[in-house]
Amino acid sequence: MNLRDIGEFGFIKRISRGCLIRPHNVIKAIGDDAAAFIPAPGQVILVTTDLLVERIHFLREATSGFNLGYKALSVNLSDIAAMGGIAREAFISIAVPENCSIEYLEDLYNGIKTLAAEFDVNLLGGDTTRSKADLTINVSLVGYAFEKEILYRNTAQHGDIICTTGFLGDSRAGLYLIINDIKADSNELKALLNAHLLPKPYLREGRFLARQGGVRAVIDVSDGLSSDIGHIAEESNVGIRLYSAKIPVSNNLIKFCAWFDFDPVEYALAGGEDYTLLYTISPDKADHVAADYLKRFRNPLYQIGEITDSGKMELILSNGRIRSFTPSGWDHFKYE
Amino acid sequence: MNLRDIGEFGFIKRISRGCLIRPHNVIKAIGDDAAAFIPAPGQVILVTTDLLVERIHFLREATSGFNLGYKALSVNLSDIAAMGGIAREAFISIAVPENCSIEYLEDLYNGIKTLAAEFDVNLLGGDTTRSKADLTINVSLVGYAFEKEILYRNTAQHGDIICTTGFLGDSRAGLYLIINDIKADSNELKALLNAHLLPKPYLREGRFLARQGGVRAVIDVSDGLSSDIGHIAEESNVGIRLYSAKIPVSNNLIKFCAWFDFDPVEYALAGGEDYTLLYTISPDKADHVAADYLKRFRNPLYQIGEITDSGKMELILSNGRIRSFTPSGWDHFKYE
Repeated sequence: MNLRDIGEFGFIKRISRGCLIRPHNVIKAIGDDAAAFIPAPGQVILVTTDLLVERIHFLREATSGFNLGYKALSVNLSDIAAMGGIAREAFISIAVPENCSIEYLEDLYNGIKTLAAEFDVNLLGGDTTRSKADLTINVSLVGYAFEKEILYRNTAQHGDIICTTGFLGDSRAGLYLIINDIKADSNELKALLNAHLLPKPYLREGRFLARQGGVRAVIDVSDGLSSDIGHIAEESNVGIRLYSAKIPVSNNLIKFCAWFDFDPVEYALAGGEDYTLLYTISPDKADHVAADYLKRFRNPLYQIGEITDSGKMELILSNGRIRSFTPSGWDHFKYE
Repeated sequence: MNLRDIGEFGFIKRISRGCLIRPHNVIKAIGDDAAAFIPAPGQVILVTTDLLVERIHFLREATSGFNLGYKALSVNLSDIAAMGGIAREAFISIAVPENCSIEYLEDLYNGIKTLAAEFDVNLLGGDTTRSKADLTINVSLVGYAFEKEILYRNTAQHGDIICTTGFLGDSRAGLYLIINDIKADSNELKALLNAHLLPKPYLREGRFLARQGGVRAVIDVSDGLSSDIGHIAEESNVGIRLYSAKIPVSNNLIKFCAWFDFDPVEYALAGGEDYTLLYTISPDKADHVAADYLKRFRNPLYQIGEITDSGKMELILSNGRIRSFTPSGWDHFKYE
């Protein structure tokens, strides 16, 4: 069964159950010309939007509907996390090719709804249409933040410590498996695949960082460490020094790199879609915040370098040598 | 030159001039993980989103970039108009195939910006990526309204007069010219083509109606008169009686129908993408509001029927006969 059989309106009826999980601020949900809701008092509105296109961002034959829906929302949640905000209302636009079944679409909405419920996000609307070729999903997400707590990219200062909330490079390794049609037949490879397919949004962690004194610039690692730290450098007008030995790589990635003959640090630098938070923090606050974070989330924060006034992007290798690096993230050439 | 030559970030730099035309409420525009802005005090937030897909909603070879951008924003403005709201912040996601030039894209953004400036709308963000096949544009639009003035679809009452703000069917005639590759070589055909390519958003008119007593259900005519009045009927749980002789059709459409042997009323009923407002109003207010509207906008309101308690959708023909009709709008099969 596909969209032509039940029509746009029939499909909307099918998927609109379970979309409204926090009704108290909502005046009009799915079903009118626009959604209407009451903003949180005293807060600033955040809006982000991400477009996922088949054969550019995902291969449908290698991705379940559930995983695709989960990821489509997750990458937007990650943007709100990187602003220090709270995610609230999501809007899903979807263009569906003839050969995409209703079952795949329902699975996709289940992926979205599962993650939305975890983070108390309503699905308040969207647009459903057909396409001639590729499945295409746009998510727009509205969130809130207190103006004084918003986290930007352009506020890093000379002397700040650069930190990240999790491993880097795993997602790119998962992508390598998909592109090269390699079966994930070990626990290590399965974990890498999941890092790519089901990225965790660091929303609670972003809120935590937003409330700490000393946290300065924040971005989520979507394009890759080298590219995203490059955004902070360029927009804050500062230099970057990273320490190769401090960049957190998982044991799974180390094994993967041994098997396929790659360098884990290269993978972490040039990877992408990790969706960890990358931030800079005043050096006198870094250890204290890391200790509180560990207590709260039972995960460490990783200090990987510092902000300099050199204007350069430098990587200090294990042997003490200095290598300059440039942003080499994907710029959306991923599945090509 | 295409997107590959200058990259996603290069393109964003090129098009980000002229996006912020009302900076006073904006904390962060294009360039961070999310946009941040201050909501209008005491007002409800409206959000709408529309996805336009090549070969489904438009043919690139038959549409200039300017017209496509203009229409992509206009259809969203129309949704805010149909809620009685004020449009404020727009977010543009775009997936660009290899064979689409940067010049076409810049023209597209010029179309968006021209209309945005007319209605005081900021472009605050979006997403730019590539696609393997079709040019795809999603616009998400944030607006505001006073809660007591919001106009819904499900509030029509027995006895209401059904009205529309403009001609119906012109856009579908323009579409017919495009699909059948007919050159618009007369003023009449050019006007019909423009009705399809550059639809007017009735935002000021929607605000006007929202402030009048007695205006009840409102929808914009996107799927076609029969389909959109069907939405009002279904969601308000009422019947519909339309008078064939009262449905406003332009002289251009009458000539077109004479030339190509169509029935103008059929065109108006089953058309789509007119983007006029269709509303119901208490009968004791209808004439007074129409007189004020004429004074203010120098255009008439057209009374085309009434809301009944029959549960049926009826069309009264010129000879007095009654024909029942069903929603026969497009449900997004347009260019197929």
